[in-house]
Amino acid sequence: MKVALVVDIIRQEEKMLINALNSKKVNYDVINASMEPLPFNKALGRYDVAIIRTISMYRGLYASAVLESASVHTINSMDSITICGDKILTYSKLFKENVPIPDSLVSMSPDSTMKAYEEMSFPIIDKPPIGSWGRMVSLIRDIMEGKTIIEHREMLGNSALKVHIVQEYIQYKGRDIRCITIGEELVGCYARNIPPNDWRANVALGGMPSKLEVDEELKKLVIKATKTVKGEFISIDILEHPKKGYVINELNDSPEFKGFLLATGINVAERLVDYVISRYS
Amino acid sequence: MKVALVVDIIRQEEKMLINALNSKKVNYDVINASMEPLPFNKALGRYDVAIIRTISMYRGLYASAVLESASVHTINSMDSITICGDKILTYSKLFKENVPIPDSLVSMSPDSTMKAYEEMSFPIIDKPPIGSWGRMVSLIRDIMEGKTIIEHREMLGNSALKVHIVQEYIQYKGRDIRCITIGEELVGCYARNIPPNDWRANVALGGMPSKLEVDEELKKLVIKATKTVKGEFISIDILEHPKKGYVINELNDSPEFKGFLLATGINVAERLVDYVISRYS
Amino acid sequence: MKVALVVDIIRQEEKMLINALNSKKVNYDVINASMEPLPFNKALGRYDVAIIRTISMYRGLYASAVLESASVHTINSMDSITICGDKILTYSKLFKENVPIPDSLVSMSPDSTMKAYEEMSFPIIDKPPIGSWGRMVSLIRDIMEGKTIIEHREMLGNSALKVHIVQEYIQYKGRDIRCITIGEELVGCYARNIPPNDWRANVALGGMPSKLEVDEELKKLVIKATKTVKGEFISIDILEHPKKGYVINELNDSPEFKGFLLATGINVAERLVDYVISRYS
Amino acid sequence: MKVALVVDIIRQEEKMLINALNSKKVNYDVINASMEPLPFNKALGRYDVAIIRTISMYRGLYASAVLESASVHTINSMDSITICGDKILTYSKLFKENVPIPDSLVSMSPDSTMKAYEEMSFPIIDKPPIGSWGRMVSLIRDIMEGKTIIEHREMLGNSALKVHIVQEYIQYKGRDIRCITIGEELVGCYARNIPPNDWRANVALGGMPSKLEVDEELKKLVIKATKTVKGEFISIDILEHPKKGYVINELNDSPEFKGFLLATGINVAERLVDYVISRYS
Repeated sequence: MKVALVVDIIRQEEKMLINALNSKKVNYDVINASMEPLPFNKALGRYDVAIIRTISMYRGLYASAVLESASVHTINSMDSITICGDKILTYSKLFKENVPIPDSLVSMSPDSTMKAYEEMSFPIIDKPPIGSWGRMVSLIRDIMEGKTIIEHREMLGNSALKVHIVQEYIQYKGRDIRCITIGEELVGCYARNIPPNDWRANVALGGMPSKLEVDEELKKLVIKATKTVKGEFISIDILEHPKKGYVINELNDSPEFKGFLLATGINVAERLVDYVISRYS
Repeated sequence: MKVALVVDIIRQEEKMLINALNSKKVNYDVINASMEPLPFNKALGRYDVAIIRTISMYRGLYASAVLESASVHTINSMDSITICGDKILTYSKLFKENVPIPDSLVSMSPDSTMKAYEEMSFPIIDKPPIGSWGRMVSLIRDIMEGKTIIEHREMLGNSALKVHIVQEYIQYKGRDIRCITIGEELVGCYARNIPPNDWRANVALGGMPSKLEVDEELKKLVIKATKTVKGEFISIDILEHPKKGYVINELNDSPEFKGFLLATGINVAERLVDYVISRYS
Repeated sequence: MKVALVVDIIRQEEKMLINALNSKKVNYDVINASMEPLPFNKALGRYDVAIIRTISMYRGLYASAVLESASVHTINSMDSITICGDKILTYSKLFKENVPIPDSLVSMSPDSTMKAYEEMSFPIIDKPPIGSWGRMVSLIRDIMEGKTIIEHREMLGNSALKVHIVQEYIQYKGRDIRCITIGEELVGCYARNIPPNDWRANVALGGMPSKLEVDEELKKLVIKATKTVKGEFISIDILEHPKKGYVINELNDSPEFKGFLLATGINVAERLVDYVISRYS
Repeated sequence: MKVALVVDIIRQEEKMLINALNSKKVNYDVINASMEPLPFNKALGRYDVAIIRTISMYRGLYASAVLESASVHTINSMDSITICGDKILTYSKLFKENVPIPDSLVSMSPDSTMKAYEEMSFPIIDKPPIGSWGRMVSLIRDIMEGKTIIEHREMLGNSALKVHIVQEYIQYKGRDIRCITIGEELVGCYARNIPPNDWRANVALGGMPSKLEVDEELKKLVIKATKTVKGEFISIDILEHPKKGYVINELNDSPEFKGFLLATGINVAERLVDYVISRYS
C-alpha cells in the first residue's frame, strides 16, 4: 500500500500524522498541493490511498478530485468534501435522511433575507454556506443588526457569501459538542464551552474544551451523519436543543484534533493510520 | 404531478418553458429563488419535480439542495449541479470514466502555476474552475502573458478563482460543438464558429451558430458524459482534437437554448416538458 | 464659455441640469465618462468649466483629474473630490481647522479595532472611510456586534474598507440636517428624520425630509466646512450634539438634490447654472 | 523636536531609520499604525514631525491624515500621499505642469477600454491607477490579450482597479531609472535593468540595479516632479523615450532604498534624518 499525504501548510496535526505513518512503517509521500501542479494523469494511480489535509478547502477538494480521477481512494472523497464544505449541501443531505438540523431558511437576496428575519423570532443566527472556524457566523438580535450584516455580505467578492442561512439560535447549556468519526466508528467526543462575549464555541475563538459522557443516542447520531455525507474521517459539531435534543450544526471533512487530544487523551493521528492500514493494505 | 419552475431572472428560455408548461396543461408554480426564502421543510414535498433555471449557479444549486431535502426530484440534481458547476470536478468524473478531456494540470499557487506553464508548450489555456460564458478563460501564448494572468487572479476575492486549470489549446477546425441531452437521449448538436479576435466560441462572445452532422461517436460520447455527471438536462461543449477526436470541454447544468433553436429548429422547452410528463407523472 | 457636463448614468438631477443649461442658453457638451476614454491631452482645454456628476466616485475623480490637467476648471476640483470622497481625509481637514466633527478613532487592524471599541462606550458607530448612501455605516451596541463587523470587513476586497472609523453615536433629535452650498453661499438646508428600525437618515434608506429654520451658526459652519475642503458645490450632513451643538458628519462632492427640492422648493440645478454663468463666463 | 516614526511592518529600511535616529540622538517614538487606534485629538500635537513608513498605502495615508489634523508635519503630507498613491492623480498634476508623462488614456468601462486599445497601437501598457511593485501592470500586445485583462479587472472587488490607464509602451534602453529626492534636493539615481521574460524593471520582480550618470536635465526634472506633487521624500521612476527623452512613469511616497544603497552607496536613512534635524528642530 502506498499512501499520499496531501498538505499545504504543515500544522501540528500533520506532524502527528507523519509521525504515525513513520512509526507504523507505512510507505507514503507528502504532496504539497500548493507547490506542485496536479495533472489529470493515470500515473497518480501509483497511490492507493490519499489522506487530504490541506487547510484551504479548495486545495483539498481539487487535490481529491485529481487523485480520484486516477482511481486513488481519497479520505475524504471529493463528494464528501463538497458536501461538508458547504453548510447548505450538508443540511440538504441530513434533512433528507431525517437527521436533526437547526430550523433554517436559505435566502439569496437582501430582500429575501429581510423576509427570512421576519419569519423567525430574534435572536437568530445568520451564516454564509461556506467558511471555517465560525467566521462570519453572526448572532442577530434585532432588525438593525440584520441590516448591517446584509449590507456587508452584499459587498463580498464571492457570490456564495451573499447567500444567507438564517437559523434558530440554540444556546442551551452554553456549549457545543464536537465528535470525531473514522470509518463507521466514533473515536470520541468532547464539549467546547462558549467563551464570554462570544456566541460561538470554536476553539480558535477561545472556546474551552472539557470532557463529555457520550450516550448511545449521540453515538448513533454522529455515525448516521457521517454516513449520510459519505464521510470517512469527519468531525461533527453538535448543538443541544432544549426540546429537540441533539442537533447537527456542521460537519468538517478535515478535522483538527489538537483540542480533541487535550480533552480526550485520544491520539487521532494514530487511530487514522491504523484504520488506513487495516482497511486498505 | 406538480412541478416547480425555479428562476431568478426570466429570460426568453424561461418564457418558452412557461409556454410549454401551459400548452401541455402541467400543474406548476414559478418560484423566484431570489425573492423568497427557501425553508428546510418537508412541506416543499408538495412538488414532485423542480426544474432549476436560475442564471446564478449558486441560486440553482441551493434551490436544488433545499428542494431535494424535501424529496422533490430536481432537474438537475444538487449533485449534478455541483459537478457541472466546477470544471475540475467535471474533469475528475469524466477522466475517471475514460471520457476524453483536454490534457490539464491543476495548480493552486502562483509558483505552481508558473511550473504548470513550463510543463506545457505555449499556447495554452488557463481558466478558473468556476465561471460561465467563457469568462476568464485565457489564451496564454508566452510566459509574460502568463505572469499577467497569475497576478490578476491573485487579486480576486473568491479563492476558487485563484486556482488555475492549465490545459492544452485545441483550436482545430476553428469551432466548438454544443449538444443538448435530456434524460438519456441526445436532443441535437450544432457548431459555434470562433469569431475573429477571440479564441472562444461562446455565443455570448459572438460565436456564429451553424448546422452539424452528428455521427454515432459523438452521440455516444455526449450520452456517456451526461450519465457520468448524473445529468438529466445538460448541454455539452465539445472540442475536436486533431489526434484524439472529440474531447469534452465543459458541461452545463442549466442549458441556454436560444442559439440551439436557431441552428437546429428544435424546441428544447417542449422536449423538456414532454420528458417531465412522460417520466414523472 | 464652453461647459462639459460629465456623467455616467443620467438621473433626474442630471436631466434638471441639462434643462437649466438649455434654458439659460449655455454652450455645453455631455461627456459620458463610462463610454469614452479620456486622454491626457491639452485639447480638452476647449472646455472652460466641467460639472462633474457621475454616480461612481472614481469616475468623477478621474474625469476631474484628466480635465484639470488640461486646465479646465472642474466643479468640484480633483482635490475636493479626493477629500470629500474619503471620510478620514474630510475629518482631517475639518479637525485641523477646528470645525466640529464626531469624536473619532481610526483603527487599521482587527486587534486595533477591538481596542478602539474598548476606548469608547457603546453604542458607537463604525464605518469605513469610503462609501456612499450610509452603506456599511454600522451601529454597534456591544462587543459581540463589533466582532461580527470586524470579521465581515476583513473579508472585503478593498483595503480601505478594512479601515474602521470608530466614533461616538449622536442620535439627539432623531434626525440629521442636510445643507447645500454653491461657491461661498448657502443654498439651503432641510432635516431628514431617521426612519423606524434604522439609525441613519439617508433618504435612500427611507429618511423623511422636513423643513428647517437655518440659524446663523449653522450657516457659518457649513460655509466654513465647504471652504475647508475646497468645495464649490457641496452637500453637508450635520448632526446635532446635545452638548457640542452642530457637528459635521460628512461632505458630498456630487450632491443629490431631489429630496432637497421637495423639502425646500429650491431648484438647485438652476442655481448652479446661474453660478457658473456669473462666475466663469 | 519630537519625531514619530509611523510603521506597520518593520523592514530593513525602517531599521536603518531607527539606527539613524538613535545615532543622531533624535527624540522619537515608533508608532505602529496597525496596532494602535489613532484618535482625532490635538494631544498628538506633541510630535513636531512624523515620518510615514507603512507598507500599506492606506495605513500611511490615514496615519498622516490623523497626525496632520493635530498640526504635526508629516513626511510625506496627506496631500502628497494621496497624489502619489494614485497614478491618475499623479499624471494629472504632472501633465498640468508640463512635466512629461507617457501618452495615456483613462478608460472606465470595458467598452471604453476596447476603444482605448483601438486608439493606440500595440504593444501598449494597461495598468490600474492604484497598486505597488508593478503589480497588474500589463503589457498588451494584441486585442486578445486586452480582452483577457478587461475580463479579469471587471471581477476585482475594488472599483479603482476596474479603471484602466492605457498608455504607450516605452522600452527604449531596456531599463528604467529610479531617483530619490529629499526636500528640494536630489539624493541620487540608479538604473534598473528589465529582467528576461518581463517588461517591468521593479527590483521586487528581479530588476538588476546598476550605476547611472545623472545629467542636469534629469536632475531638474525629478526636482520639478517632486515639487509638483508636494513631495518631501520621494522616489521617482523615469523612463527614457527615444523621442521625448525622460518621461516620469510613477512617484512613490514611501521610498524603498535597499536597492538604492546597493547601487549608489548612499545611506538614505541618514540623509533623511539629517534633513529632518536641519529643517524642523
